[in-house]
Amino acid sequence: MLSAALTQYRQRVDHHLACQLDAQPDCAPRLLEAMRYGTLMGGKRVRPFLVYAVGEMLGAELSTLDPLASAVEFVHAYSLIHDDLPAMDDDDLRRGKPTCHIAFDEATAILAGDALQTLAFETLCDAQLPNKIESNRLLMLKALSRASGYQGMCGGQGIDLASTGQRISLEQLTQLHQLKTGALIKASVELATLAVPNLDAGHKQALLNYADAIGLAFQVQDDILDITADTEQLGKPQGSDQQANKSTYPSLLGLEGACEVAQSLHQDALTALQQLPYNTELLNAFALYIIERKQ
Amino acid sequence: MLSAALTQYRQRVDHHLACQLDAQPDCAPRLLEAMRYGTLMGGKRVRPFLVYAVGEMLGAELSTLDPLASAVEFVHAYSLIHDDLPAMDDDDLRRGKPTCHIAFDEATAILAGDALQTLAFETLCDAQLPNKIESNRLLMLKALSRASGYQGMCGGQGIDLASTGQRISLEQLTQLHQLKTGALIKASVELATLAVPNLDAGHKQALLNYADAIGLAFQVQDDILDITADTEQLGKPQGSDQQANKSTYPSLLGLEGACEVAQSLHQDALTALQQLPYNTELLNAFALYIIERKQ
Repeated sequence: MLSAALTQYRQRVDHHLACQLDAQPDCAPRLLEAMRYGTLMGGKRVRPFLVYAVGEMLGAELSTLDPLASAVEFVHAYSLIHDDLPAMDDDDLRRGKPTCHIAFDEATAILAGDALQTLAFETLCDAQLPNKIESNRLLMLKALSRASGYQGMCGGQGIDLASTGQRISLEQLTQLHQLKTGALIKASVELATLAVPNLDAGHKQALLNYADAIGLAFQVQDDILDITADTEQLGKPQGSDQQANKSTYPSLLGLEGACEVAQSLHQDALTALQQLPYNTELLNAFALYIIERKQ
Repeated sequence: MLSAALTQYRQRVDHHLACQLDAQPDCAPRLLEAMRYGTLMGGKRVRPFLVYAVGEMLGAELSTLDPLASAVEFVHAYSLIHDDLPAMDDDDLRRGKPTCHIAFDEATAILAGDALQTLAFETLCDAQLPNKIESNRLLMLKALSRASGYQGMCGGQGIDLASTGQRISLEQLTQLHQLKTGALIKASVELATLAVPNLDAGHKQALLNYADAIGLAFQVQDDILDITADTEQLGKPQGSDQQANKSTYPSLLGLEGACEVAQSLHQDALTALQQLPYNTELLNAFALYIIERKQ
């Protein structure tokens, strides 16, 4: 069931992302091509999955969720393009394909990331929302901007830059990932909760707690895979974290300790879901997938 | 009068920009320092001036205009940080000071630009607006995102990248600058028109026409100054456009031809202002300043 849903939602958001890029005018074709390349080069579409899965569970229409899923994925796509740049992680490969600055050039990659970030906000501004949730649009824009900027993803990346080559504490590592990856995952869930009117505050909180748990679990598993998976599975060089001398969960806790953290976060996610009067089967399965995935 | 207003508005927006940066948490201090450096390194604050001057002329409160002026300046500041990067214009100096990637490092400069773009949208989302214009907030967010992204500033920079080293037509050069510089200048005026309720549509259009004219005139004058001013006045190396083999108004039309275009745009700006039943003295003076400035 999860696998079918992952595929269905991935295809759905890919279609919607492509449509939005197709709708852009032809003024700067090479830039648009780079934006398209960076956005449509594949990926699990974890964030759109969460928007769709949580939103549908709460009774929102898929067509309402499309622009929310796209907006959050545009932010994620821009962040990957910039993270891969020579001055940042200097990665030539992403998902087995040349990264944006390799396929195009550095200047175009920087600019494509910039324009994709703007497009995320434009997408939320222009989204056709049912009248009953129109008053939530500003909250959506606030959630996405908070999660993307200095107090979210960019801040996390800033901590990451400042701590590369240094041994940081588990607490600092956790904060780093809560901001760098967790904030946008949480925003995906929050956008979905805003796609229905008047959601019970306790239920919203439970869903945000679920998002917190799987957001961190996702990163712990990423760190584990950097050690245990091979380059072909990862679509990027195996061991690149170790090589970059980055603090990771396994480097601070050992591989076994990191796996225990992942298990415990999985449990937190399930506990959060138990507080909900909805069919949480898909979200349950997704929480397990996060810590069992091999790529 | 213009000079006093320029100073007053510049100080006002500088204060507001600094306050917003001061209000950020301490999670990534070096990143925040780079954001502050890139934002507060000086500058004429042309875009905030337009927000304040147009907004006050229309009867908006200065406190309403503060976040609008800041938002547009955060976008401008981010764009300068990214434009200066080695992969882009590779400028070491801006306003006589080391550019952000020189004062910090390239990765931090990229990230600071990214986070400043987000902060622009966050600032508009969080702005305290009087109830009577609350319904304009979404239009403000749309105006800023349209002007900043692929269909605006980023698109213009994309055309610029694609056309460097090539001779482009006057039409293409005009489109480049309408997007790269003009769109954000126009958005500054548009934000101000949205700071009052129910502005007459004809008056709004006249103000946007004014913005179009001075936005392009600003760039024509920039091109002229690149030839006629010296490095000290510019705060960046004189002749850098020529050196980068960029098409400019003087390179396509000759220096005299470029000056004629500036004069004609100045006339367009004055004509637009004549359609307004407001005291346009300050905006008149500003239009003249744009084409007579020496830096």
